[in-house]
Amino acid sequence: MALPPVYLSLDTAMSPKITVELLRQLRQAMRNTKYIAEPIQAYIVPSGDAHQSEYIAPCDCRREFICGFNGSAGTAIVTEKHAAMWTDGRYFLQASQQMDNNWTLMKMGLKETLSQEDWLISVLPENSTVGVDPWIIAADQWKNMSKALASAGHSLVAVQDNLIDAIWMDRPTRPSTQLLTLGLGFTGLTWQDKMTALRSKMAERKISWFVATALDEIAWLFNLRGSDIEYNPVFFAYAIVGMNTIRLFVDIKRLAVPTVREHLQLDTPSKVELSIQTAPYESVFTELQAVCASLGPKEKVWISDKASCALTQVIPKAHRSPIPYTPLCLAKAVKNATEIQGMKMAHIKDAVALCELFAWLEKEIPKGTVTEISAADKAEELRSQQKDFVGLSFPSISSVGPNGAIIHYRPLPETNRTLSLNEIYLLDSGAQYIDGTTDVTRTMHFGSPSAYEKETFTYVLKGHIAVSAAIFPNGTKGHLLDSFARQALWESGLDYLHGTGHGVGCFLNVHEGPCGISYKTFADEPLEAGMIVSDEPGYYEDGLFGIRIENVVLVVPAKPKYNYRNKGSLTFEPLTLVPIQAKMVNTDLLTQKERDWVNEYHRQCRETIGAELERQGRKEAMDWLIRETQPIA
Amino acid sequence: MALPPVYLSLDTAMSPKITVELLRQLRQAMRNTKYIAEPIQAYIVPSGDAHQSEYIAPCDCRREFICGFNGSAGTAIVTEKHAAMWTDGRYFLQASQQMDNNWTLMKMGLKETLSQEDWLISVLPENSTVGVDPWIIAADQWKNMSKALASAGHSLVAVQDNLIDAIWMDRPTRPSTQLLTLGLGFTGLTWQDKMTALRSKMAERKISWFVATALDEIAWLFNLRGSDIEYNPVFFAYAIVGMNTIRLFVDIKRLAVPTVREHLQLDTPSKVELSIQTAPYESVFTELQAVCASLGPKEKVWISDKASCALTQVIPKAHRSPIPYTPLCLAKAVKNATEIQGMKMAHIKDAVALCELFAWLEKEIPKGTVTEISAADKAEELRSQQKDFVGLSFPSISSVGPNGAIIHYRPLPETNRTLSLNEIYLLDSGAQYIDGTTDVTRTMHFGSPSAYEKETFTYVLKGHIAVSAAIFPNGTKGHLLDSFARQALWESGLDYLHGTGHGVGCFLNVHEGPCGISYKTFADEPLEAGMIVSDEPGYYEDGLFGIRIENVVLVVPAKPKYNYRNKGSLTFEPLTLVPIQAKMVNTDLLTQKERDWVNEYHRQCRETIGAELERQGRKEAMDWLIRETQPIA
Repeated sequence: MALPPVYLSLDTAMSPKITVELLRQLRQAMRNTKYIAEPIQAYIVPSGDAHQSEYIAPCDCRREFICGFNGSAGTAIVTEKHAAMWTDGRYFLQASQQMDNNWTLMKMGLKETLSQEDWLISVLPENSTVGVDPWIIAADQWKNMSKALASAGHSLVAVQDNLIDAIWMDRPTRPSTQLLTLGLGFTGLTWQDKMTALRSKMAERKISWFVATALDEIAWLFNLRGSDIEYNPVFFAYAIVGMNTIRLFVDIKRLAVPTVREHLQLDTPSKVELSIQTAPYESVFTELQAVCASLGPKEKVWISDKASCALTQVIPKAHRSPIPYTPLCLAKAVKNATEIQGMKMAHIKDAVALCELFAWLEKEIPKGTVTEISAADKAEELRSQQKDFVGLSFPSISSVGPNGAIIHYRPLPETNRTLSLNEIYLLDSGAQYIDGTTDVTRTMHFGSPSAYEKETFTYVLKGHIAVSAAIFPNGTKGHLLDSFARQALWESGLDYLHGTGHGVGCFLNVHEGPCGISYKTFADEPLEAGMIVSDEPGYYEDGLFGIRIENVVLVVPAKPKYNYRNKGSLTFEPLTLVPIQAKMVNTDLLTQKERDWVNEYHRQCRETIGAELERQGRKEAMDWLIRETQPIA
Repeated sequence: MALPPVYLSLDTAMSPKITVELLRQLRQAMRNTKYIAEPIQAYIVPSGDAHQSEYIAPCDCRREFICGFNGSAGTAIVTEKHAAMWTDGRYFLQASQQMDNNWTLMKMGLKETLSQEDWLISVLPENSTVGVDPWIIAADQWKNMSKALASAGHSLVAVQDNLIDAIWMDRPTRPSTQLLTLGLGFTGLTWQDKMTALRSKMAERKISWFVATALDEIAWLFNLRGSDIEYNPVFFAYAIVGMNTIRLFVDIKRLAVPTVREHLQLDTPSKVELSIQTAPYESVFTELQAVCASLGPKEKVWISDKASCALTQVIPKAHRSPIPYTPLCLAKAVKNATEIQGMKMAHIKDAVALCELFAWLEKEIPKGTVTEISAADKAEELRSQQKDFVGLSFPSISSVGPNGAIIHYRPLPETNRTLSLNEIYLLDSGAQYIDGTTDVTRTMHFGSPSAYEKETFTYVLKGHIAVSAAIFPNGTKGHLLDSFARQALWESGLDYLHGTGHGVGCFLNVHEGPCGISYKTFADEPLEAGMIVSDEPGYYEDGLFGIRIENVVLVVPAKPKYNYRNKGSLTFEPLTLVPIQAKMVNTDLLTQKERDWVNEYHRQCRETIGAELERQGRKEAMDWLIRETQPIA
């Protein structure tokens, strides 16, 4: 699934939310001493939840509630007289359609658009107070905003009661889904092993406590999964880990299940230092205060620099040690042998479903009855037939012709196009299986592609291969590989406006840090054997078509001729094994090495997926696979 | 000339400086109320000068004076009991040889080495005061050090009198060389035009004043050159520019020359806002104070974030607007048509000298009389015969065999090897001409290179070509091209530990910002047509040989087949036109495209340099050029 793109609009028809009454209520709350000691002149409503999650639960969609705009990125600010919402180029059209005229759309990235800080300074009366919920603003964002406001004589204050929640009558409750325990056969390491490894990292850096706030890190650490957030198998929780203490903050009801109690050894801890004290989700604040009150003079507490302002500021500055990537984030990124095996199995099952889908599409498309939505539904149905299927890993991007050029497109009834023999079809989709997470994009033409479509597809394929087959020294950061994916496009004056790859979790979030392949970051951690990323260059011709070729790939050791300074080398092994449509390739544009790569890749698809198709007795998909994996000349 | 490398030692034999008496005097000064109100417990001696120059004048070599170590990077810190000096891997051996046992060498980059801050905290008594000369520490470095010390209960104070100068009896005086005025024929723009452009940038961003502190920016702005610092044609100065005021701070004696007075229109300014007020170099501090005292409430002052702490802190925080790249730095980087023409001319003359050198070396080497030093001297002699030669642009790296693997090698009598038919010779050298600055590296074998030498040379050549021939979208940052230079080496498990390219000034510093091609930076500005950078991948086999192929290249528009979103594309045009030794190339490893590039490059060398050699009647060099530019098969 492509990384957040730039400058693209989602062309959807929607009617605006009527917000006049809501704004009146919010402004009333901004003056209500029930919530704040002194009235505030502005209130900021950020996008995220208290864990800075990329995807959020319905109860956390506060910005959508107040302004109507439901895109994945945007910040609303309401003052006594104004209401404004900042979002980026992807969402200009959508936001303008979803918001009524009480709201001003602030188009980020345009020269004339003021930043939130500058806008506040320009509209606020002197010595104003700006409020924000400290739980949903990250510590670094708070710092920047606070500084900017202070420089103009204003102040930023934390409003403990969320003012949107105060006026949101039918706000959904926070989900508290059933927890799933994962055994060694899926995780490769017990949570006790992970805890010990974490503590040895802490000891190494003389750290006394670690506060875990990211939901996927907590799920990974405890070998638990939930379904509190759609597509992400996580659950709302915090954890505080000391050298002899483990505190897990989670809705206590969820721990009543015997399998969970046993898994966490709640009733019979094996060792005192592995005994988990559980406490309600909401009590993390007071518990962290208690921990901090007892800190020795030189004791340090680790917390992610992306954690909420509220929790970060509980830790006194002298004891606080903010880190860009926590030891859990780093450990989770390097998959162990069991996780790798699981990811391979998940990708085999996923490929079976897709081969079946594409064989079905070939048959059905000529009838004119398949749409973007029904194709996506069929893909989900076929995936759901596979063992240990849990759900999708993100909303399927099923797009025909011009819709393919909208990188984060999601078919809606009003945009739904019919698949045909005349237009390119792009399907970017993936699933959660208990043994792994998948994410694959294939671009196909079911009739006769034009020479231009083939040419651009081939440049994208060359870029895909250049990354996948790259050999590079141990310690190389992923962003240094990004240009390899673009070289063939650049030579013809073309490009694509998104990154080339993101980290992929193992039955966890489809986007995870700290590694990736993108020109946009410099803070990624070096690639290591065992890391898993996507390789997904593309090309988008606005109004006509979109092309993307995406595999999930595993970082593996390479053995080139020499070994400079004994540093060792790495390369990638594709986990995704779904044929790349040869019909779309202009083979004249490929080098012999690239042709060999395609043929070897297709040989692996045929061998590995063929065996599984045979085992599952899926004859039509098998025929399709055999045909689609013929060697190219 | 290669960018600062990593992990390389300069193998030179030297005896340590005896510092016992100097340290006694310095510690006395640290308690002397003549210099400071209260005694300080530690004194920091950074490497640079008040302009954060890369190369410094002898009077600014304070760190070398106090500890004996004369490498280009290192910081000394003296406490009441300890003396320690931090430097990086390039200099471990050299520093250990040049410092006596009063000093502890702090090896940066090793895990066990404490940072300066942590070391100070570990050795200082409680509530200590650490002093530093605020003129030679950059504002951002001051901030970090001050913060770290404060967190441990210590404080950092500015000591206005430099304590090294106080004990340095025979300290050289600050150079005040004759100023050279450059006319339109060399600069393409009058200083008045540049001033107007600067002011329009200031107006655009609502900036009232700009403080220029970098010596090359001041030289460029006023179309003046000096020779205060070896290899860099700059002069010690500051400038403060307002919308109607220009203040130039420079040794007033230098302005007594009629040509300079006329050039700057000191006696007959054309317009009042272009009238330059001159003042002594040292008065910049009090003059900036006066400017700041008269600032209106919303007025802002631009200053580089790399400027000295002393000057930066004169500007009240509310008025200070620090910038990573000043408008002069950005304007200077994009060369105008006259400057490009000058750079081309300079490179033609430089190539003539090198062709003559290589023809001479071929004849002389078999006699066994040519050494690294005499070859470098001969290169300088031949360059000095060319029109408008001023001097070298950096110390020549003339290295034979194993010395070639020391990236910043400089031949010394005790390391001087003789050129032979058995070892690779690497010459990285360049010159300052009034019309431009050159920097070129060629690696040659005068006998029969081994298959391995040819193989690695060919990988380096492939990397050089990959960058030089790259086509990329307008707006691409140079660091995104760095991996192209390494791809062929990486595929064979090889690499080099330095960046691929740096910006090059026009009769200015051979290293200049804000553009470059390196994996190490992310803060470079996008490449633009008219920028000039070096393209210099290499390969170094410790103890055996070094290979580097360096051209200076100009960023020019490219015209590929398509033009995505009308963004336009760029590529490079080599300015350096010196044959690349075909004998070193294993042509089997080149693609047809790469062979074509080499042949086209050599055709250009033959055509352009051949014409100039003929004009200058240099027959032997001409024969050499003709032979060395035969097409490869």
